[in-house]
Amino acid sequence: MEIEVLEGIFDANEIIARENRALLDRFGVFMVNMMASPGAGKTSLILRTLEGVEGELSCAVIEGDIAGKVDSERIAERGVQAIQINTGGSCHLEARQVNTALGRLDLEGADLVVVENVGNLVCPAEFHLGEDLKAMILSVAEGHDKPLKYPLMFSECHVLIVNKIDLIPHTDFDLELFKKTVRKMNPSVEIFEVSCRNGDGVPAWTGWLKDRVGK
Amino acid sequence: MEIEVLEGIFDANEIIARENRALLDRFGVFMVNMMASPGAGKTSLILRTLEGVEGELSCAVIEGDIAGKVDSERIAERGVQAIQINTGGSCHLEARQVNTALGRLDLEGADLVVVENVGNLVCPAEFHLGEDLKAMILSVAEGHDKPLKYPLMFSECHVLIVNKIDLIPHTDFDLELFKKTVRKMNPSVEIFEVSCRNGDGVPAWTGWLKDRVGK
Repeated sequence: MEIEVLEGIFDANEIIARENRALLDRFGVFMVNMMASPGAGKTSLILRTLEGVEGELSCAVIEGDIAGKVDSERIAERGVQAIQINTGGSCHLEARQVNTALGRLDLEGADLVVVENVGNLVCPAEFHLGEDLKAMILSVAEGHDKPLKYPLMFSECHVLIVNKIDLIPHTDFDLELFKKTVRKMNPSVEIFEVSCRNGDGVPAWTGWLKDRVGK
Repeated sequence: MEIEVLEGIFDANEIIARENRALLDRFGVFMVNMMASPGAGKTSLILRTLEGVEGELSCAVIEGDIAGKVDSERIAERGVQAIQINTGGSCHLEARQVNTALGRLDLEGADLVVVENVGNLVCPAEFHLGEDLKAMILSVAEGHDKPLKYPLMFSECHVLIVNKIDLIPHTDFDLELFKKTVRKMNPSVEIFEVSCRNGDGVPAWTGWLKDRVGK
């Protein structure tokens, strides 16, 4: 019998990511992996997204946090299926955690699963979860120089949501320079500019997402 | 002969952190480990700190980034010794990297070494570097709910610098609630409120730091 050798944690993760992919395909479910720094607005964007697709897509949310369950409670209040994963110190989600969560969701009637990753611009980019779409959020308060410092996240994401644009007048954030830098690293990335606080720009994002989910 | 067993990376790190500590003690140098999310203002606070202690303390800076050297260039422009560590993907600094950097600095005439850790609220809190002081920065744009989500960082830090307070009027950040939450987790933490953009509150922080360095 042949023995399979796993080259560390990434290969092991990849195998389970593929299992997740197959499971989602079986049920025709689209999965988004939402990644960002702490406080960039992941939960706020998820809440805005649920609002924007309400009545059109049936959604579920997997919340990844080191500790606590405040975010999943906020989601569940909306009557949306929510599962909380507490990583207990680990700085990213892995495919096996998402696999367990998917097993507990009712995927039969679902169209869209949104995974909120742990707040971190580094490690989550290295672990595929079996998602259809890697989305990252950057808050303008973080500054326009972030792509050069966290290159993997910016080059891995399929869609980049620039959040808190209502704060631009109060910061030194240079949106044009930022977009130019990102496009050099990731020419195909889709960029949206939103304010989760006042809702500006959110419809463009949810419209594009609905198109992608294709229901 | 007895064989020493290292319980994984933390024990190995701890041994080198103690070596760093001994080296700093030999030269009478105080070391600050500056930790924060991406874009919270680590480099800006370091620049403000250098300005605030100029002529009183002789400083050096160790810059930790996944990639790039823009920050160390900004420091060096001020005529301050700066060493760049590129972690090449790793999401935190470890004691051995700081050990190498300390070996390249002229510690003879130095009073204060500031280490800028990789932008991450998770893993840097787990790796001691041999520092005298663990400082963390939170930007108000990140939100007042961060302590419950990233508990280790908030309970490990000795000093917490709340940055971008000029943005408070444009956000939902509740400073009193935030401080109450933090103090429950970390009753002895010293808290400063600053704006690196306009300099507000910086003298209180640099005054306290000079006192700690005790030169």
